[in-house]
Amino acid sequence: MRKVTVAATQMRSRGGGDANRDAAEALVRAAAEQGAQIILLQELFENNYFCQKQKPEYYALADTVEENQAIQRFSAIAAELGVVLPISFYEMRNRAHYNSLAVIDADGTLCGVYRKSHIPDGAGYSEKYYFSPGDTGFQVFDTAYGRIGCAVCWDQWFPEAARIMALRGAELLLYPTAIGDEPLNPALDSRDHWQTVMRGHAAANLVPVVASNRTGTEVEDDWQITFYGSSFIADEHGAVVAVADRESECVLTATFDLDAIDATRNAWGVFRDRRPDLYRELLSLDGETAE
Amino acid sequence: MRKVTVAATQMRSRGGGDANRDAAEALVRAAAEQGAQIILLQELFENNYFCQKQKPEYYALADTVEENQAIQRFSAIAAELGVVLPISFYEMRNRAHYNSLAVIDADGTLCGVYRKSHIPDGAGYSEKYYFSPGDTGFQVFDTAYGRIGCAVCWDQWFPEAARIMALRGAELLLYPTAIGDEPLNPALDSRDHWQTVMRGHAAANLVPVVASNRTGTEVEDDWQITFYGSSFIADEHGAVVAVADRESECVLTATFDLDAIDATRNAWGVFRDRRPDLYRELLSLDGETAE
Repeated sequence: MRKVTVAATQMRSRGGGDANRDAAEALVRAAAEQGAQIILLQELFENNYFCQKQKPEYYALADTVEENQAIQRFSAIAAELGVVLPISFYEMRNRAHYNSLAVIDADGTLCGVYRKSHIPDGAGYSEKYYFSPGDTGFQVFDTAYGRIGCAVCWDQWFPEAARIMALRGAELLLYPTAIGDEPLNPALDSRDHWQTVMRGHAAANLVPVVASNRTGTEVEDDWQITFYGSSFIADEHGAVVAVADRESECVLTATFDLDAIDATRNAWGVFRDRRPDLYRELLSLDGETAE
Repeated sequence: MRKVTVAATQMRSRGGGDANRDAAEALVRAAAEQGAQIILLQELFENNYFCQKQKPEYYALADTVEENQAIQRFSAIAAELGVVLPISFYEMRNRAHYNSLAVIDADGTLCGVYRKSHIPDGAGYSEKYYFSPGDTGFQVFDTAYGRIGCAVCWDQWFPEAARIMALRGAELLLYPTAIGDEPLNPALDSRDHWQTVMRGHAAANLVPVVASNRTGTEVEDDWQITFYGSSFIADEHGAVVAVADRESECVLTATFDLDAIDATRNAWGVFRDRRPDLYRELLSLDGETAE
C-alpha cells in the first residue's frame, strides 16, 4: 500500500501581493494539518485574474522563476511542512512570458517548471495577450509522494494532455485553474461541463484528478467575473469524492492508495490495447494526416 | 437549424439468429415511430455474446459484408423507414475476422464499414480470440442526417478514437456495446465508469454521444454475464439527457440541433487551441517518443 492524501484549495483574491500569498499560506497550513501531502493552490493565486482585460502594464506582474515571491515563500513552507506544492505563477524569461507552474517537492527543492500549453482567448479570458503557448511539453514530476502530472487551467479541457501525462506514468493529475462566468454571456454556466471533461480524464486514464479553482467576484473596469469555485477531487473511475461549493474558501482532501490504483489500471487493460498506429491524425489540427 | 433525432435501443439476446433480428427490427420500428432518424442497435446483436468463452466453432458465426443477414435485412428497413442504421456484425473477409460495423444510410445504401480498433481481453470478454484489431482506422460517415462517427464497444474507452472522429467532423458519436459484470470478479460494477468515460468524450469534443448496450443474462458453460444495459444519450456538454435502466428492453431518443452545437463548439475554442506539436507521445504505447 502506498497511501497519499491530496488536497484541493479554493480562495478569493485579496487584490494581489502579500495579502494573496498570506491567504494561500493559511490554506496550505490548514490542508497539511488535515494530513495532506500534496496540496494544490489555484491558478495565478498571487494576483487578481489580470487577464480579464488587455493592459500592457500587467506585464510587470511577471517574474523569473528565481525571483518569483510565491516560489521563494512556498519552497520554505514545503520544506517546513513536508508537503509537495505546485505553484502557479506568471513567468518571464528573457523576452518571453508564460503561464507557468513550479512544482516544489516536500524538501523544498524545485522539481521543475511546466509552462501552460493551451492558451485560451475570449472576452474576460484574454490569455493569448499575456502568455505565449508553453514550450515544455507535458510534464510529470517525481515527488516524495508519487509521480504527479501537472497542467494548468485550459489544459484541463484537452484529453491529449491528460493522456500524455498518464502515459508517462502520472499517478495523480493536478490542475490549478481560474474559471467562472462569461462577462459577455452571463447565461453561460460551464461548471458542469468543466467537471465532466476532467472526470472523463480520470476515468479514461484511471488516474485521480485534483482541480483547484478560484472563487469570488473580481471587477475590472466595466465588467467583472465571478469565479465559480467548485474545486473537486475525482477518483480513478471519475467519481467525484470531494467537491466545494461555488463561494467558499476551503480545503478538500482525499486519500488514494496509488499501488491499488496501479493494479486496477493494469487489470482494466486500456493501456495494453491502445493503437498508436491509428492515432496519427491527432498530430493535425483538422484531422487530415500531414506527411 | 438542423435538428436530428437519435435513438439508442437496448435488448436481450433470444439465443441468436432470426429471433434476435426480429427483436432488433421491432425496436428500430418503435424508434422510427418516435421520430428517430439515426437509430443505434447494440454490439453483435444477432447472437449471444459468444466471446464469453473461447470456442473454435463460433468462428462459423462470421459472415462477409455481402452475406451478413442483418445487413441485408436492415438495409431494406432503413430504406423503408428513411432511417440511418449502424449495424454491428461479426465480419469474415478471406482469412481475417473482425468486429465490424456497417453503416447503412437512410436510402438503404451502405455508407461504409468500420472495424473495431481496440480489442479487449479478459475473463468473459475473450475478444482477442475472435477478432483481429481493425485495419480501417477511425471513420466518419456522411449520412442523410449528418456526419456521424461510429466506433464499437471497447473503442469507447479511448479518448484518441473520439477525438479523431471529432477532428474529422463527426457531429454525433455512436457506440454499440456489450458490457456487463465480470464472471471472475462479481463485485466489480463498471457501469458508472463506463458512462463517465463517454460523457467525457462528449464534453471534451462538444459532440453528443449515443451508447446502446445489451441487457439480460447469458449463460455459457460454467459461468454467465449479466449485461448492465444503462444505454444513454449525452449532450455536447456531457450531460446525460436520456438513460435506460439495467434490465429493460427499450428505446431512448433525443433531439439535437447540429448547427447550434457547431456554433457552441467553435465558440468554446478547444479545437482552435490544440497543440499538435506537443502530442507526439500519443503515437507511442509508453509515452516515450519513437523517432
